[in-house]
Amino acid sequence: MNINNLKAERTNRMTGAISELLRVTARPEIISLAGGLPAPESFPLSIINILHKKTVKKYKANAFQYGPTNGAKQLRDAIVRWIKERHIKVLPENVGITSGSQGALDCLGKIFINKNDIIAVESPTYIGALDAFNPYQPEYAEIETDDNGVVPSSLEKILKTRKIKLVYLIPTFQNPTGRTVSRERRIQIAGIIKKNNALLIEDDPYNSIRFRGIPVDPIYTLIPENTVYLSTFSKVLAPGLRIGYYVAPVEVGNLLVSAKQSIDLHTNSYGQYLAAEYLSTGHLKKHLPKILKIYKSRQETMLNALAKYFPPSFQWTHPEGGMFIWIEGPKGLDTEKLYWKAIKKNVAFVPGAYFFARPGEGKNTMRLNYTNVNEKSIEKAINILAEVIKNNL
Amino acid sequence: MNINNLKAERTNRMTGAISELLRVTARPEIISLAGGLPAPESFPLSIINILHKKTVKKYKANAFQYGPTNGAKQLRDAIVRWIKERHIKVLPENVGITSGSQGALDCLGKIFINKNDIIAVESPTYIGALDAFNPYQPEYAEIETDDNGVVPSSLEKILKTRKIKLVYLIPTFQNPTGRTVSRERRIQIAGIIKKNNALLIEDDPYNSIRFRGIPVDPIYTLIPENTVYLSTFSKVLAPGLRIGYYVAPVEVGNLLVSAKQSIDLHTNSYGQYLAAEYLSTGHLKKHLPKILKIYKSRQETMLNALAKYFPPSFQWTHPEGGMFIWIEGPKGLDTEKLYWKAIKKNVAFVPGAYFFARPGEGKNTMRLNYTNVNEKSIEKAINILAEVIKNNL
Repeated sequence: MNINNLKAERTNRMTGAISELLRVTARPEIISLAGGLPAPESFPLSIINILHKKTVKKYKANAFQYGPTNGAKQLRDAIVRWIKERHIKVLPENVGITSGSQGALDCLGKIFINKNDIIAVESPTYIGALDAFNPYQPEYAEIETDDNGVVPSSLEKILKTRKIKLVYLIPTFQNPTGRTVSRERRIQIAGIIKKNNALLIEDDPYNSIRFRGIPVDPIYTLIPENTVYLSTFSKVLAPGLRIGYYVAPVEVGNLLVSAKQSIDLHTNSYGQYLAAEYLSTGHLKKHLPKILKIYKSRQETMLNALAKYFPPSFQWTHPEGGMFIWIEGPKGLDTEKLYWKAIKKNVAFVPGAYFFARPGEGKNTMRLNYTNVNEKSIEKAINILAEVIKNNL
Repeated sequence: MNINNLKAERTNRMTGAISELLRVTARPEIISLAGGLPAPESFPLSIINILHKKTVKKYKANAFQYGPTNGAKQLRDAIVRWIKERHIKVLPENVGITSGSQGALDCLGKIFINKNDIIAVESPTYIGALDAFNPYQPEYAEIETDDNGVVPSSLEKILKTRKIKLVYLIPTFQNPTGRTVSRERRIQIAGIIKKNNALLIEDDPYNSIRFRGIPVDPIYTLIPENTVYLSTFSKVLAPGLRIGYYVAPVEVGNLLVSAKQSIDLHTNSYGQYLAAEYLSTGHLKKHLPKILKIYKSRQETMLNALAKYFPPSFQWTHPEGGMFIWIEGPKGLDTEKLYWKAIKKNVAFVPGAYFFARPGEGKNTMRLNYTNVNEKSIEKAINILAEVIKNNL
């Protein structure tokens, strides 16, 4: 039978182009700076064994039974306490558990986006968010960014001149650029969103992954009634457990729960109780410095190698945390062509164009990940990449 | 801000009416025959401890890392071997892992259903499937059922006279009725689907939960190229791990993977590897008889109590397995009114009307679950329910 005839209209928006592109990076000989994977060495395996015993002993069959759609109360309580350090002060009823942050992005798309609704996103933005929203057939308005992230005046202009359904931002250690929006700009952005009665999705997966500098409070703390805040255990515990969470006004939370009920009933119980114990026993706080130590060293290695090998016509970000460095080459450079040449030399990265909502932008950019490759391989890969670039300028 | 103004059109189809109804069943004094929960005593907790050690030792950090969207190869391989007992003979490329069967139902809705597309469903059918499909705004064509399940001539008439996008059936120990479609009817149904070039979703969560009688092969085995077969570990391992799976033609699988990528990236890795070990070490086969023993006894207790206490104007199914008994009362009975009266006496069930795609049907029916309540409580609850019924006839 012809399956293509059965496809829904929205299915044409599920391109999977980047998965196609990155398929070759699975080859073992490739040094991949392409993905966004945490270092497996950063996972607290021996702590997980302790937490497993504790979880089974404490929660017994409940750790393996169906659970509430909004998440286990124990985990929501533990998150309420944990995010107080970010100056987010909420009640457990404002918190819900999702199957990774991706689960929250899909649910938000499902409850809010009608076909042709306009979503304001940074230029560039996180490709996984575009993937989550695209099947609901929105259009995008691109907010300008500079070295300090979102340009508030650009957001203001968009909100004044177009009918925007949602504003989606990653203000801290942005994916793909690594940039963090300053406190001053956050206050401006919050004011603009409030004034225009807009709804902000603040995606904050890398909040705890800070090596340097001073933490900046989430925009959520400024305009909680206009914000759905998303974060995750993927970067501080383990992504394979698929435990993300949202903080939202109760009426948004109720809609998210209605949507999630029909998507997966609830997020896996075992991972939720494990995460609850990880937080409430203080293991997260003790383990986090070990993760930061690994990533800081790898990031510094990459920044040093870029300074040493890359041609002067290239610029890159120097993030105080997160997982990515963003590189801009000279105008006219096509990093997708470069990608295939780098693959021949066994090095992979993500061509930057994939992170733009509008096709054709960012052709001279690329995203490098430093968390999942050791220092020696990073040095080697940047050296090779620089050679490939020099041979193609 | 007014969140209601932001809601997508589809969000009006997320009613959550049954969650609202069943909220009271969480009260500890209630004997609930309402849910569809496996018995916590049926979870292999000590085996899970063994499997945990094995999983961490064998897969190490991979058990906690991001994984492929279609699922861990080891689990897909193990499922291929496992479902050979159901005479499903496929390659690992035909199998994909979802976040429970619910995850597959949502993905199928997402890739196939345009607004106003018509889905053929049994009358009554599984409410979770209606919940999964509803946000994609379909209409339903109801296939007649009798004591032997789906009536093939009714399906044929629907496929001939209406433009049907998908046919959704639960042929074995159906939820809510517990009925199983005979081999003869399966052959007829397969022929009708094949002839009309239709796509069948065969939902088969209870396949292994058989206490009596002879297994009947899934319809998938008759028309694999026209069928997406769904099953789960929720009834044979633990639902809280949220591990379901599909078996489908590769081109359908590819679409499901595209959709799932944007919904949750992948199903939790740990649960997948645990399930792979549960299958491949033979623990499932050894543990299954223990589950069946618990459920068989509870079902017999319920059937005996129904025969003992219920008025002669009531009929009910006598399933050879699964988790539910379906009761039909005399015409004119309103089981939703009965529900609130039973709640006052601390007994809960699901009024049958919730399982019909068309509002107003099945008002004289109810679904009882026997897996999550012990024999003593079942006897007591049925006795109370009979009293409530007698006082309201």
